[in-house]
Amino acid sequence: MEIGIYFKFLLTFGLILLAARIGGELFERYLKQPPVLGELVAGIIISPFALGGLINDPIILHFATIQGAFGLHEFNVMEIISEIAVVTLLFVAGVETDVGAFIKQGITGALVAVGGVIFPFIFGYFITMWLVPEAGIAGWLFIGATLTATSIGVTVRILMEMGKLQTKAGTTILVGAVIDDIIGIVILSIVVGVSAAAKAGGELNMVHVSLDALKIFAIGFAVWFALLIIGVKLNRYISRFLLHPFRKSGTIPIFALIVGFIIAYLVTLVGLHPVVGAYVAGLMFAATGEREDILDKTRPIMLFLAPFFFCYLGMQVDMRLLWGGAIVAVILTIVAVLGKIAGCYIPARFAGKMTHTESMIVGIGMVPRGEVGLIIAGAGLLAGAIGRDLFGAAVAVSVVTTLIMPAMLKPFFKLPSASAKNTGKTLRQDE
Amino acid sequence: MEIGIYFKFLLTFGLILLAARIGGELFERYLKQPPVLGELVAGIIISPFALGGLINDPIILHFATIQGAFGLHEFNVMEIISEIAVVTLLFVAGVETDVGAFIKQGITGALVAVGGVIFPFIFGYFITMWLVPEAGIAGWLFIGATLTATSIGVTVRILMEMGKLQTKAGTTILVGAVIDDIIGIVILSIVVGVSAAAKAGGELNMVHVSLDALKIFAIGFAVWFALLIIGVKLNRYISRFLLHPFRKSGTIPIFALIVGFIIAYLVTLVGLHPVVGAYVAGLMFAATGEREDILDKTRPIMLFLAPFFFCYLGMQVDMRLLWGGAIVAVILTIVAVLGKIAGCYIPARFAGKMTHTESMIVGIGMVPRGEVGLIIAGAGLLAGAIGRDLFGAAVAVSVVTTLIMPAMLKPFFKLPSASAKNTGKTLRQDE
Repeated sequence: MEIGIYFKFLLTFGLILLAARIGGELFERYLKQPPVLGELVAGIIISPFALGGLINDPIILHFATIQGAFGLHEFNVMEIISEIAVVTLLFVAGVETDVGAFIKQGITGALVAVGGVIFPFIFGYFITMWLVPEAGIAGWLFIGATLTATSIGVTVRILMEMGKLQTKAGTTILVGAVIDDIIGIVILSIVVGVSAAAKAGGELNMVHVSLDALKIFAIGFAVWFALLIIGVKLNRYISRFLLHPFRKSGTIPIFALIVGFIIAYLVTLVGLHPVVGAYVAGLMFAATGEREDILDKTRPIMLFLAPFFFCYLGMQVDMRLLWGGAIVAVILTIVAVLGKIAGCYIPARFAGKMTHTESMIVGIGMVPRGEVGLIIAGAGLLAGAIGRDLFGAAVAVSVVTTLIMPAMLKPFFKLPSASAKNTGKTLRQDE
Repeated sequence: MEIGIYFKFLLTFGLILLAARIGGELFERYLKQPPVLGELVAGIIISPFALGGLINDPIILHFATIQGAFGLHEFNVMEIISEIAVVTLLFVAGVETDVGAFIKQGITGALVAVGGVIFPFIFGYFITMWLVPEAGIAGWLFIGATLTATSIGVTVRILMEMGKLQTKAGTTILVGAVIDDIIGIVILSIVVGVSAAAKAGGELNMVHVSLDALKIFAIGFAVWFALLIIGVKLNRYISRFLLHPFRKSGTIPIFALIVGFIIAYLVTLVGLHPVVGAYVAGLMFAATGEREDILDKTRPIMLFLAPFFFCYLGMQVDMRLLWGGAIVAVILTIVAVLGKIAGCYIPARFAGKMTHTESMIVGIGMVPRGEVGLIIAGAGLLAGAIGRDLFGAAVAVSVVTTLIMPAMLKPFFKLPSASAKNTGKTLRQDE
């Protein structure tokens, strides 16, 4: 029966959520780790490169990509649900944010983002030049760019679960991650331009490249900043004109989330990632009187969907690829971790006048490269700037930095693990 | 940028939800109609055949079908989200059901389903034979089969919103709709077999066809009944072994919904529609002590997703197709409405000993053909049993029966409209 194909996608959706829930539960209960880590590992286990490959079906637990559809090299159907999940997560994170604190941490967060980009980039570039000289300038640039990435999802989930999203460190991480995304697209555009010129062997017009990068940065920052100001200064009008019409029907939270999806798309028109739009949309509503109502009804949606994103992210990992350049991967991972921590710790500690513990939380919280690292490395692979071996190493960096972060973060939350767990529990059961 | 394609799907998701919410709001506030009707109409307005067609983009508010992907004639990406939405809706409806009443209404519901199939089928068959003799036996059969369909979604939404899902009439409709689906797949298999034989001009082995139909019926009914009995008799074990492991992490509702998705798929293996599985899975949890917790956390997910299903359903409607066989469409619609009401009213009133009002609610509640009618008619079109004109008429029947039902139902809820509205409001704001 033809329609059966659709039902197989329904099954895949259910199986991914099931694996995520079981993985999350096991990690939380027996390994005392955050559920999100269990969801990632569950994804690695059920991926088409592992268990999923044993199910001899091109759709169930496979990526079911369609070659050449919509002008894409490969079109992946479940990717859309994964995007919906992460947009919902960052929207809720936005609504949960203390807007006053967010603005207060603005300068520090910006410096953290800049430091967290510069250090890993320089380290990554020169270490790759030393380890893999044959990759050439295009390859060194792309590995450097991959190391600048910050994937905020895992950190946000952990901070949420521990009730620490609204702390000074939590807010700084959020500001840093948003600005990191803006810097990230600028770097990617520079890297793509320079490596294309390097590969073509032609002369590089650095003035041209710099002007382009400046333009992208200015637009991205302006849009993001404008949305933030609208949210903070005009929240009365947002309440009155955008939310109150839906008060009678009790659908304010749903309408707010829908606005989040629209804004998530709109920011992509200036090159930002949808999660930045979703987060800023959430911030817009964080200052309104309807905040509690919005949180109350959107959090269950987030709790249902977010594990899909993390498990699906885990599914992208082909463990076999990681062995290829094992030594390079190990060294790059160490560089990625140390570079990010140093680059973020220094501004947090000295410009932001945070304590050592807070600064370490900021530094470690920015460590995961996650899907952002995978995207940049994937762009490098597609552009021919890096080969399969360096791509494997970049994947390893993205995965390992994401997996080890929770354990690294733990010693810096000064609560005994039992009470920290209870806080998380209470919060989640109150929802 | 390649990844931009995915963002366009994100936008389509957001725009469909936005149109649905605005349509639902306008219909509720100004036309005093249930939101679901506004969602359907919003879908018709933004469909690729109307407003969506004006956006000159193959993805945004278009169906973005991929030809020949996964061995399908056309593969429609957003359809999967639509399936996820309707599965969530029927799961929540299942959890909300009073299981005792469901079983009590079992016999009546079964008779309602049988009556609601026989009357419209016979009427549809002979009226089509009279109106469109050139369609032949295959065409008459397919129109008859289309008229037997029941789409439970709209009725369930309205009953939920009015707090009437757990009434005698509400329960009977749910039983009737579940059994109607089982009978429906049997009829479809017979019709496909007979019309294929008729078109081939060959001899029809009625014994063979009947045995096949009997087998499908027996398997479908057995699976459905077994799931029901498991839910009702073994709910203590469901609580203890399936739900309690997730009590500490506060994820019982999410795990229950995931089980709903898995069961929704599993029933499709014996030919049932996923919504039947989702509903019965919901019933399994309706008798557990965790019911309230499950409802509390899954209802916001349902309220967010369900409008997507209805709006997307509206988007399937090409108004231009409806003009083709306008007279045939009008007559078939009248037959469809009267046939279903008569076929359901009589068993409800006389076998079920319900009042006139209750029996009318049951009859009218079963009237919408919705997406089920569209699926059967689509199968007929694909099989070459009916042409574009009869298909247009069948689409009209599916759409119009779905659109007029709420207005027909209203006089039979004996509450003054103001207080009925308040009941709905209170319920939805309590969530």
